[in-house]
Amino acid sequence: MKNFNYKNPTEIIFGEGRIKEVGERLKPHAKKVLLTYGRESIKKNGVYDTVVESLRANGIEFVEFSGIRPNPYLSHAKLGADLARKEGVDAVLAVGGGSVLDESKAIALGACYDCDLWDFFSGKASPQKSLKVFTILTVPATGSEMNGGMVLTNEDTLDKFGFASPFTYPVFSILDPSVTLSLPVSYVACAAVDIFTHATEAYFVKEDTASFVIDRAVEGVLKSLIESTDKILQNPQDIDARANFMWTATLAWNGSLHCGVGIYGVPNHVIEHPISAIYDIAHGAGLAIVLPAWMKVFEEKYRSRFAFLARNVFGVDEIDDHKAAQKGRESLIKWFKTLGAPVSFAEAGIFDVDVEKLSSLAMGVMGSKGVALMTQDEIKKVLEVAIK
Amino acid sequence: MKNFNYKNPTEIIFGEGRIKEVGERLKPHAKKVLLTYGRESIKKNGVYDTVVESLRANGIEFVEFSGIRPNPYLSHAKLGADLARKEGVDAVLAVGGGSVLDESKAIALGACYDCDLWDFFSGKASPQKSLKVFTILTVPATGSEMNGGMVLTNEDTLDKFGFASPFTYPVFSILDPSVTLSLPVSYVACAAVDIFTHATEAYFVKEDTASFVIDRAVEGVLKSLIESTDKILQNPQDIDARANFMWTATLAWNGSLHCGVGIYGVPNHVIEHPISAIYDIAHGAGLAIVLPAWMKVFEEKYRSRFAFLARNVFGVDEIDDHKAAQKGRESLIKWFKTLGAPVSFAEAGIFDVDVEKLSSLAMGVMGSKGVALMTQDEIKKVLEVAIK
Repeated sequence: MKNFNYKNPTEIIFGEGRIKEVGERLKPHAKKVLLTYGRESIKKNGVYDTVVESLRANGIEFVEFSGIRPNPYLSHAKLGADLARKEGVDAVLAVGGGSVLDESKAIALGACYDCDLWDFFSGKASPQKSLKVFTILTVPATGSEMNGGMVLTNEDTLDKFGFASPFTYPVFSILDPSVTLSLPVSYVACAAVDIFTHATEAYFVKEDTASFVIDRAVEGVLKSLIESTDKILQNPQDIDARANFMWTATLAWNGSLHCGVGIYGVPNHVIEHPISAIYDIAHGAGLAIVLPAWMKVFEEKYRSRFAFLARNVFGVDEIDDHKAAQKGRESLIKWFKTLGAPVSFAEAGIFDVDVEKLSSLAMGVMGSKGVALMTQDEIKKVLEVAIK
Repeated sequence: MKNFNYKNPTEIIFGEGRIKEVGERLKPHAKKVLLTYGRESIKKNGVYDTVVESLRANGIEFVEFSGIRPNPYLSHAKLGADLARKEGVDAVLAVGGGSVLDESKAIALGACYDCDLWDFFSGKASPQKSLKVFTILTVPATGSEMNGGMVLTNEDTLDKFGFASPFTYPVFSILDPSVTLSLPVSYVACAAVDIFTHATEAYFVKEDTASFVIDRAVEGVLKSLIESTDKILQNPQDIDARANFMWTATLAWNGSLHCGVGIYGVPNHVIEHPISAIYDIAHGAGLAIVLPAWMKVFEEKYRSRFAFLARNVFGVDEIDDHKAAQKGRESLIKWFKTLGAPVSFAEAGIFDVDVEKLSSLAMGVMGSKGVALMTQDEIKKVLEVAIK
């Protein structure tokens, strides 16, 4: 195992009926918050009313900032930061899925600085403070509810970069699985692919393969993910499956699966980011296109790790690493197909794949993360395999 | 899944050569600390010198309080609290294994109060503050480095009670697996049994058996535990096995395996505490005596859970729950024996088993925890099965 530091100060408040606690729990932290959300969904499912009622009952002022879209834009986050500054809020309360949480973290940072918010994403500047962030999660997938990370797209350059800060861990996050009962299975499918990739990126490519305590933890998360997703597809009203799915998503990207693994990259995220930035598809759909192709191109390099996945998660009974790795990839593709996730650009209805441009943007994403795992030629190969 | 709150603010600083960072990292928090430890071991393995040098280099004053013994006593903790108060220290820096960490947390609490420290353990009073606690772990087992819990024995009554507070989570804990290379395998064996029991108590008896995300996490921890323990027994100098073992111990009792399981008891800890309090054996040895007997007595009640353990951890291929549960118990006993752990009182050299007294004290422990899982007659049955 490699040396590591681990600290995750976010408090999780998990369970049915917990959203109404938000006002009381915010009280010691904030008098006035920026209430951020997307479009209509939190008004349809009653979450908006519960939040507003709880804030009013506890005398917490709020200013609304809505319209946060999937694959959120830098320009919109800047508007939010301007509003937060103008209104003098103490904190940001984000209500929604990963995109809302991510943009809200950027707003919380931006409200404290006059510099270009993108400087943090491009590595030109490093923030030393942030408004406090609180979240109510309604779409489990990205893990943003229990980490300091965020992803934004700069629409001028189409760069979709991730950035993480110790200052943007939510102080608390409320996770009520009952609000996810109304999420359609198509959302769940994309989320499942995202979660799968969060848990496997380091598992496949990590510097240290002797950290088997982490391997066993990753495999547990993957098994729980497959089990809960399959149950939701069979019965979308299965609240226990929804709850297990929701907590699995948090565990996959809260840092606990990365303790002691040393240096690791996120190659599939690197290749995917430009895809969802350009074609505006769900991040999970983009990952379903990329991952099987990436596994094919890198089969030789990471063979033994793919064989681990095959044996320990998909139950492949095969001693030979090469055969096990192949069967593992086949099992993964089969599972993605049962979810209805596209496993190629063609299946996603994308026929104008600009390999040159996508690979060039992916190199930019990889550069921003600082772990050079692939050449541009290798990225092109992955994209070409993914075409159909 | 049941509703839950989870927050664990402790920072983990893990890896070879990290102990020398202690002074620099303490600097923002404390000017003068109570340096607590056991007897000679930290002087023999060089940890004491490293700590003292780092404190001096960073201008941090310290007062020493040593002589903390395994199964630590209330009276000694009170002496430590008196010294901390008299010397006006800002914080407690505990260097050692679980017993040192546990007593140090009690000292940190006691230093802030004039009341009888035992009032916190017996439930008569609830602390609202504590001196800050920092730890350097040298013997992995109890998980105390990343939780708010502590266990003390009141030598007047022989009550050995556990207590936990949100105020006694260590601010940071340094875990250097290289200092564990000198731990004899007999220590590792006792620690392994303790860790196994930490991970399985709730897994066996929890209110909510639909929280399968936690089941998979528990099974991952158990597999990693068995894998790392076996590697250490084969080669005590295997630093990777030592590191995996160390982090596995932390994960088993840092709260992460108890998210969403609802109400649970710790029946084997309840029965064991009086045993190590009276016979002064290692806690892990006591658990090795109790667990197989408890599984036999409660086979019918928790059969399906024992069958889970058998199939998912020990690889038992058996559809029938009854047979699977039996085979799982046999696998566990076999594993304990390979560790050299005693699986009966007789094997531990204890022949004067006072079933009446032990069961009566165990009822007291159970009462202090508030989860009544067993009758005194059932506890007696377990003790009788455990005799030989």
